[in-house]
Amino acid sequence: MRAVVCGIDPGLGITGYAVVRARDGAVAVLDAGVCRLDARLPLPDRLVQLEADLTALLNEHRPAVVAVEELYAHYRHPRTAILMGHARGVILLAAGRGGIPVRAYGATQVKRYLTGNGHAGKGQIQRAIQATLGLVKLPEPPDVADALAIALCAAADLQAEKAREVQR
Amino acid sequence: MRAVVCGIDPGLGITGYAVVRARDGAVAVLDAGVCRLDARLPLPDRLVQLEADLTALLNEHRPAVVAVEELYAHYRHPRTAILMGHARGVILLAAGRGGIPVRAYGATQVKRYLTGNGHAGKGQIQRAIQATLGLVKLPEPPDVADALAIALCAAADLQAEKAREVQR
Repeated sequence: MRAVVCGIDPGLGITGYAVVRARDGAVAVLDAGVCRLDARLPLPDRLVQLEADLTALLNEHRPAVVAVEELYAHYRHPRTAILMGHARGVILLAAGRGGIPVRAYGATQVKRYLTGNGHAGKGQIQRAIQATLGLVKLPEPPDVADALAIALCAAADLQAEKAREVQR
Repeated sequence: MRAVVCGIDPGLGITGYAVVRARDGAVAVLDAGVCRLDARLPLPDRLVQLEADLTALLNEHRPAVVAVEELYAHYRHPRTAILMGHARGVILLAAGRGGIPVRAYGATQVKRYLTGNGHAGKGQIQRAIQATLGLVKLPEPPDVADALAIALCAAADLQAEKAREVQR
């Protein structure tokens, strides 16, 4: 069983991404990084750049799933949240056009998968990612750590599903 | 002086659009309607549909400007606002990819342009649009009326700019 998953943490300044491959219970990172959008560009041009970067990433790795964080009902900064929505919309579009299914996971669900605690702090999450992937250093910046966290959660979800299918 | 402007009122259920042509002070509607997205489809598929519809519309009319409403700082329903942000992001992307500049106008600015009153009600706005365009009926549904309102405001803005350029 082999599953390639792309986790994405959308933002209009920085969008973090992580592509992981799960195979027989082991997980490896194929690619991880950030799309850093030029803040001096008008918003439409930044979205064009984001769409181009993501489409190239998805074409390169052809993941089975794109995983993003679920929307909350409440945000501390509504304007920032709406701008994040612009980036998230473009990400979902890029996945949709590529025929790649999108799965959304709640922050609590991701934290619980990684640490057993749905309210774990940033540091705990980083250490759990480091341990799972056998990384030498803690994953950084936060955008990449968040993208890795969601990719790992989605990869486990996918593996569990496939295992259930095989047992049937 | 001739300017074609496309006004868009984004939404994940219904997106209203209006294409108007301003020429020598007179304004005519070239096209107006709604993209009605299938609520049973997953979000990425709805965004793919919206992008395809809008790209076709922009290719057909090649407007000089795409006009949308500015983002507010506060929304009554944050989740709906973020979902609207998804649609708005895809609209800005479609305009950006077509090389069409986007202008954003505040709701107050649009209302003031149409009625002289930045806090005019829906009915007043509809009647002002009807009078400006010499329509037989009030513009409906609300999504189309809002798209027309913003298109008219942007068209006037563009005409005024061009007039200033000529005077220089």
